[in-house]
Amino acid sequence: MGIVVQKYGGSSVADAEGIKRVAQRVLDAKRAGHDVVVVVSAMGDTTDELIDLAQQVSPLPAGRELDMLLTAGERISMALLAMAIGNLGQEARSFTGSQAGVITDSSHGKAKIIDVTPGRIERALEQGAVAIVAGFQGVSQDTKDITTLGRGGSDTTAVALAAALNADVCEIYSDVDGVFTADPRIVPTARKRDRISYEEMLEMAACGAKILHLRCVEYARRYEMPIHVRSSFSQKTGTWITDEENDMEQAIIAGVAHDRSEAKITVVGVPDKVGEAARIFEALSEAQINLDMIVQNVSAASTNLTDISFTLPRDDGQVAMAALARIQGEVGYDSLLYDDQIGKVSLIGAGMRSHPGVTAKFFASLASAGVNIEMISTSEIRISVIVDQAQVDDAVAATHTAFDLDSEDVEAVVYGGSGR
Amino acid sequence: MGIVVQKYGGSSVADAEGIKRVAQRVLDAKRAGHDVVVVVSAMGDTTDELIDLAQQVSPLPAGRELDMLLTAGERISMALLAMAIGNLGQEARSFTGSQAGVITDSSHGKAKIIDVTPGRIERALEQGAVAIVAGFQGVSQDTKDITTLGRGGSDTTAVALAAALNADVCEIYSDVDGVFTADPRIVPTARKRDRISYEEMLEMAACGAKILHLRCVEYARRYEMPIHVRSSFSQKTGTWITDEENDMEQAIIAGVAHDRSEAKITVVGVPDKVGEAARIFEALSEAQINLDMIVQNVSAASTNLTDISFTLPRDDGQVAMAALARIQGEVGYDSLLYDDQIGKVSLIGAGMRSHPGVTAKFFASLASAGVNIEMISTSEIRISVIVDQAQVDDAVAATHTAFDLDSEDVEAVVYGGSGR
Repeated sequence: MGIVVQKYGGSSVADAEGIKRVAQRVLDAKRAGHDVVVVVSAMGDTTDELIDLAQQVSPLPAGRELDMLLTAGERISMALLAMAIGNLGQEARSFTGSQAGVITDSSHGKAKIIDVTPGRIERALEQGAVAIVAGFQGVSQDTKDITTLGRGGSDTTAVALAAALNADVCEIYSDVDGVFTADPRIVPTARKRDRISYEEMLEMAACGAKILHLRCVEYARRYEMPIHVRSSFSQKTGTWITDEENDMEQAIIAGVAHDRSEAKITVVGVPDKVGEAARIFEALSEAQINLDMIVQNVSAASTNLTDISFTLPRDDGQVAMAALARIQGEVGYDSLLYDDQIGKVSLIGAGMRSHPGVTAKFFASLASAGVNIEMISTSEIRISVIVDQAQVDDAVAATHTAFDLDSEDVEAVVYGGSGR
Repeated sequence: MGIVVQKYGGSSVADAEGIKRVAQRVLDAKRAGHDVVVVVSAMGDTTDELIDLAQQVSPLPAGRELDMLLTAGERISMALLAMAIGNLGQEARSFTGSQAGVITDSSHGKAKIIDVTPGRIERALEQGAVAIVAGFQGVSQDTKDITTLGRGGSDTTAVALAAALNADVCEIYSDVDGVFTADPRIVPTARKRDRISYEEMLEMAACGAKILHLRCVEYARRYEMPIHVRSSFSQKTGTWITDEENDMEQAIIAGVAHDRSEAKITVVGVPDKVGEAARIFEALSEAQINLDMIVQNVSAASTNLTDISFTLPRDDGQVAMAALARIQGEVGYDSLLYDDQIGKVSLIGAGMRSHPGVTAKFFASLASAGVNIEMISTSEIRISVIVDQAQVDDAVAATHTAFDLDSEDVEAVVYGGSGR
């Protein structure tokens, strides 16, 4: 048997009972003959509580110190889990990100993994121990300071460690059963997928499915590390995320994702000259804004003016509006429109490549549900539309039904976030 | 100006307000031109809360994991203090024990400092930053595992760092004003001492004065590092602990200490043969019991039997009684007596060396207060007696008065513990 990396989110280790339950699961995997490496997040709300403490002493804490503070959270959960496993008679040793060899760059709060050198983990496994590793954290190559990986960091730690250790599988445990064809809170007939390809999962994550973070899936794809997303509250098989294979279930559509976290900005009356649009996007880039969809209307020939619309994370809305206002004189546009009452609905599936007509069917289903399309963007395996936020649920449900994704069994499950 | 090391206990950084107050004090020292290194304990009750969590998952947690868990406490307080100082416009960087170069042996929970290599601290000071260091923790030389130093650990961290950095002074802040001639809760007329020698402070600490831990004072004496014990709640000068010097105030008596944490065991009817007593103390040593005072009565010639009494930490009472019971057949003693209703009162002063008559005066004061002496032990600068626990307060007060230690001003201060 080979190495299994298991990652448990904050909701799985929220209290002593949860930690003991996870300890038993880890022991089961060890007794089944695997070498087991466990990556844990901080317990429940620990991270939020620490951030609250930081706010009480400083409105704008230094990134280095915030990382030092937040990494205390995993230190607590991993030591407790090691004790709980020890109490079942199996030796377990906990390791910080630094001790586990998670080397990052120096971007505090959003560090990127540069290398993983898990020598101490390998020695622990050789000696028959279970290794527990703090998720979400590393140590910077240059300054030797403690860093955190940002949102989805613990999942990324797990996949990166699994790749470095040549593990058989990286199991991501949370409080949901796997990846569904849509959010079961909106579509009660949504089905759990048994398999999904990296590419499809990437699109799902990018389009608002919260079960896995984008960078973790990217990492898994790059190293071809199979991920098994499953619930820590049941023994059911979850969803395998793997390379697209011949034996992969040949669904045209992997699922319907939605995202209510974006806003739309329209720059009205931009002079239709070379370089004007470039200047707008330059200003947004300087302000560190990540844009999602961009649409430029055809210029009205009589005026030689054009409108440019784009979507962006709603949290960046204010900064973006301010950055655009600063260049109004320079660019000479008329006005700015801001709309945060939008939602994005995306249809994702590798089968789109070989099945024409998906787009037409998608738009027809939206039309029959009375949903108006404001913007459209497509990739090879995805179609996304921006709609009125109030119509997101209807759009998701209508599309799900139109593509025959509904299950006959309604799963009683809550589709939650994946923690960090 | 040189380097100042300041240590703040858990009660000084118990909440956001306390942390901000400490930040201001640190800034004052920095603005006065010093290079400042701050050693912090965990916030308030954090350590107890973490121990409670550990108990919930495992009745007997592994020492390595308990150390990993508990060191999260200082990680939180030091990062918050660094942020609070940063918020006042002064750069501050926090360092774990490992990052600060606190190298220890591998005895988890009671590690001893082997070496201090504070290269990163020195670089931070050179660059004008305040360095914040986690007290109580280090990293083991052999296994590279995180260790904790046990009781009084943060004080020891501070003195060891001060010595390694060649600091001018190590300031130990707590919620009391300094070292008093007796516990002011018992003797309201107790005076704060301005100076006290290492030797006297060692005896005070060994005899129950809780303001500083024994090993911290031992470390300071070995490296001749002056300690300034003072309150973080006032600007008053506290007590300086230094070498005995010519200009030191020439008090005969430094103070009266007391200790209610011991128990007394008497082994009755031990055959008065060579090796019998040795076997008893061997058994206690094997059980890891640290004895304090030992008295052997003169053998009654007619019986050839003797009684051996000794005192020990009350917490070790059960283990010691069990160890002695196991060797009863071998040694052939009659019975064991256990008494935990005892107290120790100690009179300490370097002046005893040159002033005969101190012992006589001490015993006379106890007699006039109606206090019966059960055991006596002396060192060059200390006399200790074991008395009935109910009479400890009377014994301390009578002795304090007999040696003219009473102040005319009653200090309104509570004499508390020093945290860890």
